[in-house]
Amino acid sequence: MDKTAQKRVTRTDGRGWEGVEIEGYRPGAATGVERHTIVGGRKASESDPGPGAEVRYFELQPGAVSRLEKHEHEHFVIVKRGLGYAVIEQEAAEIAANDIVYVAPLELHQFVNRGDEPFGFYCIVSAVRDFSQEPSAEDLARLNASPAGKIAKPFAVPPPVKRS
Amino acid sequence: MDKTAQKRVTRTDGRGWEGVEIEGYRPGAATGVERHTIVGGRKASESDPGPGAEVRYFELQPGAVSRLEKHEHEHFVIVKRGLGYAVIEQEAAEIAANDIVYVAPLELHQFVNRGDEPFGFYCIVSAVRDFSQEPSAEDLARLNASPAGKIAKPFAVPPPVKRS
Repeated sequence: MDKTAQKRVTRTDGRGWEGVEIEGYRPGAATGVERHTIVGGRKASESDPGPGAEVRYFELQPGAVSRLEKHEHEHFVIVKRGLGYAVIEQEAAEIAANDIVYVAPLELHQFVNRGDEPFGFYCIVSAVRDFSQEPSAEDLARLNASPAGKIAKPFAVPPPVKRS
Repeated sequence: MDKTAQKRVTRTDGRGWEGVEIEGYRPGAATGVERHTIVGGRKASESDPGPGAEVRYFELQPGAVSRLEKHEHEHFVIVKRGLGYAVIEQEAAEIAANDIVYVAPLELHQFVNRGDEPFGFYCIVSAVRDFSQEPSAEDLARLNASPAGKIAKPFAVPPPVKRS
């Protein structure tokens, strides 16, 4: 995308958004998760051209989950459709359409489809942001010892491709 | 709101969101516009506690419009319901549920209900941001000379209370 030419209006076409490619977590990995990057993109610096935030839409098939991860940047999530859990640290909260979720810096989190329809949500993040971290052994032990451990699926999504 | 204690999950209660006050543009001004500040709040500095962005929901009654204004900060808008126009500079784009709108810095803009049901949209902004500016005489002349001039309603919402 030419970041200097962000469209003002991106219309839905029912299946997704006009001109927006539907991606997965990683080419070839069947995770049941779609990603639509509707506005903006990652930037190395605030002074780079393009929007200061990114608007993405994720859709999880029944049984699917987002990656269990943590990072310094915040998530602002708006549920569009379906039924899910927001696993954040030791809590698993039931969420549904029009519920709003805030994930603070470095909170371990995962979104889980708890229904039999697709579960979809918008997720807004800063364009300048750190990369996701995998949970540590201590994170996993704490999660598994909590009620949220019954909901989370730590190994359902392969870890991100390593960056040098 | 205690910004250090942002809730992780804010659930809809059908009419709005649990614990979120429904506000207008200004106490006592009947503009047909509701504002729900769901996550976060304005901050003077990035280092202040609380989320780095604010998630608001605006709902416009039939015939109602948002304030015609411009500012340095960006808008990331997700239409939730109803039919509207996004007036941005000299364009008035028809928008509907699930369309996404990006308003770049200093673009003059206004949202207009073009239907006979409420028109509602989420609007995400940075917590640290400048205050809105009223359009200049030149802005208004340019708007009125454009097709968007037939859609915009420059004086429908009273200007913001002046800050010293």
